[in-house]
Amino acid sequence: MRIHRHIFLAAVLAFAAGVAFGTRALAETDPLPSWNDGPTKEAIVGFVQKVTDRSGPSFVPLKDRIATFDNDGTLWTEHPMYTQLAFALDRIKALAPQHPEWKTQQPFKAVLDNDLKALAAAGEKGLLELVMASHAAMSTAEFETIVTDWFKTAVHPRFKKPYIELTYQPMLELLAYLRSSGFMTYIVSGGGIEFMRPMTEAVYGIPPEQVIGSSIKTKYEIQEGKPVLIRQPEINFIDDKAGKPVGINMYIGKRPVAAFGNSDGDREMLEWTGAGSGTRLMMLVSHDDANREYAYGPANGLPDTKFGTFSQSTMDEAGKKGWVVISMKDDWKRIFGFEP
Amino acid sequence: MRIHRHIFLAAVLAFAAGVAFGTRALAETDPLPSWNDGPTKEAIVGFVQKVTDRSGPSFVPLKDRIATFDNDGTLWTEHPMYTQLAFALDRIKALAPQHPEWKTQQPFKAVLDNDLKALAAAGEKGLLELVMASHAAMSTAEFETIVTDWFKTAVHPRFKKPYIELTYQPMLELLAYLRSSGFMTYIVSGGGIEFMRPMTEAVYGIPPEQVIGSSIKTKYEIQEGKPVLIRQPEINFIDDKAGKPVGINMYIGKRPVAAFGNSDGDREMLEWTGAGSGTRLMMLVSHDDANREYAYGPANGLPDTKFGTFSQSTMDEAGKKGWVVISMKDDWKRIFGFEP
Repeated sequence: MRIHRHIFLAAVLAFAAGVAFGTRALAETDPLPSWNDGPTKEAIVGFVQKVTDRSGPSFVPLKDRIATFDNDGTLWTEHPMYTQLAFALDRIKALAPQHPEWKTQQPFKAVLDNDLKALAAAGEKGLLELVMASHAAMSTAEFETIVTDWFKTAVHPRFKKPYIELTYQPMLELLAYLRSSGFMTYIVSGGGIEFMRPMTEAVYGIPPEQVIGSSIKTKYEIQEGKPVLIRQPEINFIDDKAGKPVGINMYIGKRPVAAFGNSDGDREMLEWTGAGSGTRLMMLVSHDDANREYAYGPANGLPDTKFGTFSQSTMDEAGKKGWVVISMKDDWKRIFGFEP
Repeated sequence: MRIHRHIFLAAVLAFAAGVAFGTRALAETDPLPSWNDGPTKEAIVGFVQKVTDRSGPSFVPLKDRIATFDNDGTLWTEHPMYTQLAFALDRIKALAPQHPEWKTQQPFKAVLDNDLKALAAAGEKGLLELVMASHAAMSTAEFETIVTDWFKTAVHPRFKKPYIELTYQPMLELLAYLRSSGFMTYIVSGGGIEFMRPMTEAVYGIPPEQVIGSSIKTKYEIQEGKPVLIRQPEINFIDDKAGKPVGINMYIGKRPVAAFGNSDGDREMLEWTGAGSGTRLMMLVSHDDANREYAYGPANGLPDTKFGTFSQSTMDEAGKKGWVVISMKDDWKRIFGFEP
C-alpha cells in the first residue's frame, strides 16, 4: 500500500505540476531557499536528483527512500543545554514541594539552587536520576499532557522564544524537500521518544510513528477499570551512538539512504547509512556561528561542551568517507524562521 | 507530510473513481468477496463507513486510522505449530552437524529425534533455548537470508504448500480494504520481528516499518571494516499479552482504532484499542473449522493446544465488550487463496 500511495502521489504531483505551474516553472522553484548556493546545497540537490532519476544508475525505489535525522543540534538548538534537560529541571522544580528531601539531596539540590557546577559534577548518573524522578511514575497520557503544556509556556533563555521555534529553517526546508521527493523522514535521536512525539508532527511534519528515540520501560495496568501504560523508572533503550543503527533496524527494518547528524552520537548512524550500496548522503551540521546561534566543538578548534560533542576523530572520518559538513555560518542564509 | 500524502491520495482516488468506474459502480464492488454476508461482515463494513464519513460523528482523521493485526492464527495458520517454531526446528537440524553435543542434550535431542513429547516437556525455557541457538550469533543480514531461503522451500505438513500460502484470504481482503480506506495496517505479533519482515511486504502488503514483534538484542560492530548488527542470544522485547500495548505505544505512539487477534495473547491489545474514545472495532478469529483448517480452543468447547489458546475468560470479555468473534466456519466463504 505504501507503494501504491507513493505511485498515486507521484501521479497527482505530476498532474498538479503540469496544471498549476507548468513543469518548467516548478523546476525553477528553489526547494531550499534558506541555503546559500555552493557545494553543500549542491550535494543535497544532486543526491535527490540522482536517487529519483528512474532512468539513472542510482535510482532508489520509493519504498527504500528513508532519511534519518538526529534532533538535538541537527534540527533544533541544543545549547545552552538539551531542551529535554531544561524540561527535566523545570519538572524537578515543579515537583519539589512534594519532595522536601530534595532540598539537601544531590543532584536535586543542585537543580533547586540553580547550581550548574554541582549539576555537572553529578555526571550522567545524576542526570539519569533527574530524568527518572521527572519522567516516570505516571501514565503515558499524563506525561504527554505535561510535555505539551510545557512546550506552550517554556522559553529559551537566550532567544526568548518557545523552544519549538528554535528549529533550523534550512533543515525544515530539507525535510520538506526530501518528503516531496518521496522520502520518509525519521527522527533518530538520543532524546526521549515520548518527549519528542507530542511536538514532531506540528513542528517537523513527522508523525509519531516516524520518531525513534531513547525510552524508559512502560507497564500495562488496569486502573479503575481502564487500561493505562505506566512509565517505569527503568531504562528501556538508549538511542545514541552505536544504539542508533540498532534503533533504526528495530523500528524501520531498512537501512537509510540519507542520514543527518551533528555530533559524535551520530557517527554510527552515518557509518551504517554509508555502508549500504549505491548512492548515499551523509551530512553533519557544524555549529560555527556564535553570532546567530552557537559555536562549539573541538573539531572546529572551538571549546568542547557537554552537549553535542563533535570530535576531531569524527571530523577525520567525515573527510575520509565523504560525509558533507554543513557550516551553519557559511551554508545557511538564515537559521531560524523568526529571523527577518 | 503524511497528511498531505493522504489528502493527495484521497483526491486522486476520488478522481480515479469518477473517471474509471463511476462512483456508483465502485460502491457496488464488494471489497470482501471471501466473507459470507451476515453480521460479522456488516460489522466491518459498518465500521469503515462510520470512521470514513467526514460528516458523521465517528469520523477518524487519516493520520489516526491505525489498525493492528496479530499474525499467527489471525493472518495465517498457527497449527500444528507456529511457523517460526517449524523454522527453528529445521534450523536446529541443519546446524546439528556442527553441534555433536546436541545428540544427547535436551531440548536439542528431542528435535533431532522428532520427539514432540520430550519437546513439549522442555516447556518455554526449552523453546527459548532452541530459538537462541537458531536465531542468534549472526548478523541481521545473514539471518534475513536464512529466513528468506527457508520460506522458499519449507512446506506445511498438512497442506503441502509453502507457509506463505497458508495466509487467510478473507484477512488479506480485509487488510486491502482497510488500506484503501486510508488505514495504516500494522502487524503486532508475538512472533520474531526479523522472522516476519522478510515476507510481510510481499505476502500482506505490509512494509517492514509496520511490523512489530518480539525481538532479541542486536549489537553494532565493525567486522572487516564494515558495520554489522550482530544478533545476541538475549531477549530484547516480548510482544505478547500485556507486551502488545507496550509495543504499539513504543513503535506507533498512537492508539489503534481497530485491532484483530485470535488468542489470549491478543486480549490486552484489544482492551487497549477499545479503551480509546469514539468508534472502535475489535475482532477475534475463532478456529472452528477442522475441515478446511483447524478447530481448537476451550472457548469453543474444543481441546486446548499450546498454540493460540482462546480461553473462556477471553470469550466472556469479548461478549461483555462487544468484540466481534469471527467464525472461520460460518463467516469465511473460503479460507486460503489456493482453494478452488
